[in-house]
Amino acid sequence: MPELVGAEPGWRTIGILGGMGPAASADFLTMLVGAVKAARDEAHPRVLLESNPNVPDRNAAMAGGASPGPVLAAMAGRLLAGGAEVLAMPCNAAHGWAGAVRDVLPADAVFVDLIETAVAATLACAPRTVGLLAVGATHGLRLYHAPLEAAGVRVIAPPADAVAALVARVKGGDTGPAARSAATRLAVRLAEDGADVVLAACTEIPLVLDAGNCPAPLVDATAALVKATLNAARLAVAA
Amino acid sequence: MPELVGAEPGWRTIGILGGMGPAASADFLTMLVGAVKAARDEAHPRVLLESNPNVPDRNAAMAGGASPGPVLAAMAGRLLAGGAEVLAMPCNAAHGWAGAVRDVLPADAVFVDLIETAVAATLACAPRTVGLLAVGATHGLRLYHAPLEAAGVRVIAPPADAVAALVARVKGGDTGPAARSAATRLAVRLAEDGADVVLAACTEIPLVLDAGNCPAPLVDATAALVKATLNAARLAVAA
Repeated sequence: MPELVGAEPGWRTIGILGGMGPAASADFLTMLVGAVKAARDEAHPRVLLESNPNVPDRNAAMAGGASPGPVLAAMAGRLLAGGAEVLAMPCNAAHGWAGAVRDVLPADAVFVDLIETAVAATLACAPRTVGLLAVGATHGLRLYHAPLEAAGVRVIAPPADAVAALVARVKGGDTGPAARSAATRLAVRLAEDGADVVLAACTEIPLVLDAGNCPAPLVDATAALVKATLNAARLAVAA
Repeated sequence: MPELVGAEPGWRTIGILGGMGPAASADFLTMLVGAVKAARDEAHPRVLLESNPNVPDRNAAMAGGASPGPVLAAMAGRLLAGGAEVLAMPCNAAHGWAGAVRDVLPADAVFVDLIETAVAATLACAPRTVGLLAVGATHGLRLYHAPLEAAGVRVIAPPADAVAALVARVKGGDTGPAARSAATRLAVRLAEDGADVVLAACTEIPLVLDAGNCPAPLVDATAALVKATLNAARLAVAA
């Protein structure tokens, strides 16, 4: 991954496959803009975002429902046609169908993989046990279990229903103190069960769980994707 | 403007001309998503956003620089081509060139005018004097002065340099307590000078000024645009 170099270098256009959910996409854009740390509008990258609420449900797809793949490929195609060169998708579970996006990617464009990015950020903490906060599809597809277990890390998780209830609450617009307390309770239980690191692996989770209310070191997959996306988009300045 | 009706009616696709500045666009998207008040992703509208940091500077254009018009028209064209049917532009000063957007608008699409929307929200407060927080181009083009004065309302404003300094600070990423205090000082001075209502007429201002730190009734032009955009996008459900 290239280093961040130069004060106001050029950027490649960023394309965001969003809407999974809409609030998580807005959160990702806000974090992305904030992380640019530019003093002037002109020093920012151009960003195209499609917030599409009609991507087939990832958990329902696991149960035999419509595949999100074709809709994700169509969104990627539209973003690429609009000039996007670096694609990011702030939804963990949707990465089970990331192959559909990669299939339409031209050679000069990049798809910044949220799962690979978050796994790298997690392994950088050298955990023995990771507490995974993710929805059913992310578990079922073993998106995090496979790479973390391959690296010798144990993965534990709360009951799937408890995470689903919290995510549904956030999708419904509740990010207040009670929702934050519910997130803390899940994280406390993971820490008690031996997690050295809590991995927020659903983009709704960081809306109610951050360093301020998590009892263990927290890896925010969304924040990792923000950093990796900007690194991929920033053009190196010739020395 | 159609009323908000039904629980989960259909939506027309919303297109956001953004990047003026990038943080203000992210704020607009966050407010828009929050205002939908939907329990599920599928109940949200589809939203396309282009955050383009290369729209020629509005204040520089007033001083003889390049016109933002052609770039805004091109952005509108891309959003319309992507399926947008309701366009919104969260930048007050850029509305001096809104004609360029209207010129490319097909008969079945809508441009929700931020200035008209914010003027209506301001007049609903029945003020005698409005304290206008806006950048130089918004003043120079008399975007708010003309309609408010035509309605018999006096418009007062802080020195242009003071507002420009605050906006530059917010564009540089500073939305902390000191920036909020600077915003409060501007609003206090307007209230002391007789403003019944403070009109936040630059999309960077609400990032540091809200009901919590404004000493007078506040009209947030961005918030008014959010509401008007959703009203224009929501399809009426047949009775």
